[in-house]
Amino acid sequence: MSEIFPILSTTMTSDVSSDSEATPWLDPAQQIVWRRWVALTTEINAALNRSLQERGQVSISDYEVLVVLSETEDRCLRVSELARCIGWERSRLSHHVGRMEKRGLVRRVAAVEDARGAVVHLTEQGLDTIVGIAPLHVRDVRRVFFDGMTDEEFAALDSFTGRLMDRLRPDDEVLAPGAATRRGA
Amino acid sequence: MSEIFPILSTTMTSDVSSDSEATPWLDPAQQIVWRRWVALTTEINAALNRSLQERGQVSISDYEVLVVLSETEDRCLRVSELARCIGWERSRLSHHVGRMEKRGLVRRVAAVEDARGAVVHLTEQGLDTIVGIAPLHVRDVRRVFFDGMTDEEFAALDSFTGRLMDRLRPDDEVLAPGAATRRGA
Repeated sequence: MSEIFPILSTTMTSDVSSDSEATPWLDPAQQIVWRRWVALTTEINAALNRSLQERGQVSISDYEVLVVLSETEDRCLRVSELARCIGWERSRLSHHVGRMEKRGLVRRVAAVEDARGAVVHLTEQGLDTIVGIAPLHVRDVRRVFFDGMTDEEFAALDSFTGRLMDRLRPDDEVLAPGAATRRGA
Repeated sequence: MSEIFPILSTTMTSDVSSDSEATPWLDPAQQIVWRRWVALTTEINAALNRSLQERGQVSISDYEVLVVLSETEDRCLRVSELARCIGWERSRLSHHVGRMEKRGLVRRVAAVEDARGAVVHLTEQGLDTIVGIAPLHVRDVRRVFFDGMTDEEFAALDSFTGRLMDRLRPDDEVLAPGAATRRGA
């Protein structure tokens, strides 16, 4: 599969550079937490993808596209808007959607009213696929991510991820800081 | 660039399925935290990659390969071992290393003593590149990830990421639970 993704990473101890006085290198504890974060983005993704592929014949990338479409009112979205929702570059999404179309999961229709590109529709088969596989996926997410999480960890993850979303994707109201607490209340 | 990666994602509220009694759907607060986690793996990666590309002419994937090689004793590693360290599939790594070789950052040498494939060497140019760019990258990581992190959040991230590493990559001693506390002490 082509959807493996880059590790971010780090050599941030001073031994790699003579610039150690000026550079605010990570301390060893920070470096471990950062490297774990980087490694986990790969490992979690791989674990969820493996399970979906084995038991649902879809990849984690297919799943993400199907989810976003299934949550729209008309079960369709412009390619550009879909790319924005998922956070992919449009060229990658176009290639991926083409492969999904061949498998009958989505259908592309040229947008006649303007030139901003095709609209991607979820097919009945695509909807059946996401409905069928979602219960498996939610169990995987619980097993991989939530199992054993303490209340303190959840609260800290909520505040930490909320702040980072605010920093990196400030226009996202759904995932903004405080959203989990408000909606979970 | 080709190194964008899959979002994991989720439609895990009961409205997508009739199986809501049997399936342990995420509650709204869990769903927000999970979606943020998924979104952040994309956003953090994109932010760090953008900065490296603009100011260092390397991608985040290049950076990861350079870091791992720079930390080995002989500044070289078998392709299979490098793939294991980074968590990529070997075919993806081989293609990537080929592109890095053309730019002079690494050099591949056939391993004569056995058939398990080529050894990747860090070149002087590759070493200069990582040494030159690491101070920029550590500042980016602080700005994107660590700035504003409270002690409670750090402690929770330490325990949470440690447990997940133990679950997903149980043989990794460097990033095992407790490592941050031990090394940071």
